Amino acid sequence: MQAHALVAIVTLLALLLYFYMGLRVGQARTKYGVTAPAVTGNADFERAYRIQMNTLEWLPLFLVSLWLFAWSWGGDLIPAAIGLVWILGRVLYLTGYTRAAEARGPGFGIQALAAGVLLFGALGRIIWIAAAPHG
Amino acid sequence: MQAHALVAIVTLLALLLYFYMGLRVGQARTKYGVTAPAVTGNADFERAYRIQMNTLEWLPLFLVSLWLFAWSWGGDLIPAAIGLVWILGRVLYLTGYTRAAEARGPGFGIQALAAGVLLFGALGRIIWIAAAPHG
Amino acid sequence: MQAHALVAIVTLLALLLYFYMGLRVGQARTKYGVTAPAVTGNADFERAYRIQMNTLEWLPLFLVSLWLFAWSWGGDLIPAAIGLVWILGRVLYLTGYTRAAEARGPGFGIQALAAGVLLFGALGRIIWIAAAPHG
Repeated sequence: MQAHALVAIVTLLALLLYFYMGLRVGQARTKYGVTAPAVTGNADFERAYRIQMNTLEWLPLFLVSLWLFAWSWGGDLIPAAIGLVWILGRVLYLTGYTRAAEARGPGFGIQALAAGVLLFGALGRIIWIAAAPHG
Repeated sequence: MQAHALVAIVTLLALLLYFYMGLRVGQARTKYGVTAPAVTGNADFERAYRIQMNTLEWLPLFLVSLWLFAWSWGGDLIPAAIGLVWILGRVLYLTGYTRAAEARGPGFGIQALAAGVLLFGALGRIIWIAAAPHG
Repeated sequence: MQAHALVAIVTLLALLLYFYMGLRVGQARTKYGVTAPAVTGNADFERAYRIQMNTLEWLPLFLVSLWLFAWSWGGDLIPAAIGLVWILGRVLYLTGYTRAAEARGPGFGIQALAAGVLLFGALGRIIWIAAAPHG
């Protein structure tokens, strides 16, 4: 655990940001009068909802890649730093998309890049491990 | 693995409950005549769908926090017991929300509390581990 | 890590397929003129979206069961092979559902069977581990 403490902290910070996005959906339900189980009917609510949903859609890509990257390369600081870039991208996505759907691009791109580095970095490393002669 | 056998069993029981929620959505499609790819158009179907979706939204928060809690504190019985409380909250959420959208509160609150204890319990413990002098 | 390199590679391949499904949703937005935050309004878009969403709904069931199966049984080749069957089912689901909602059944069934083998295989093994006398 201690070997990946920073990766674990970044993981929990990402989940806290995601939890905050869910809180905002609940607040938007009240503010814009969108009663459960509906998830449509008001554009401001729908943007808040899509911010959370799109982040949920990317969580498995991000979290699984982050940990496979950390385990396969063996480090802590580098995967944690890339994970922080993902969180930064998601914060920009949140603030941009809240303003306007068109302003969600830059944050989305940053988090996609960070997730891609983790996914392909892990995949390349693990194929190398699997193919290497043992001993 | 044996060190966290109870946490693993609770994890799989949570996934089985979640799988059952998905089965109910499939049955509600037939019963209320909501043909794929639609996910709206009948309030009973929409409640069944939201029960599954909201549980999906919380699964990463719950499962990742559960395992980071178990790994960082080193126990099995305590995280497994908190995980059982989460499952209980989700069962109440399922039965309440099926009756009426307004009756989903208590189960939701219980599962949110359990997930919060796991998340903040793990975060506190891992920051303590990361900050502690080595040796 | 090396002990489960094949399971890790299958995990990342499943995530790449899922990522591709997300790309198709983005392309369908442009092609069918469904502007964010909307996720309804065109049946072709809705099928592309449901392909991604249903796969997301099953990812926690599949990935968590895959790794708990691999850890509890201790192998690499067998869980990786079952994981490949899941990916194959999801490819058939993608191609079938893209043609017509009615054609999504066979691929869905294959991936459900693979996930079920992993989930119940892991659950049975872990209960056996937890119940076995130590030493």
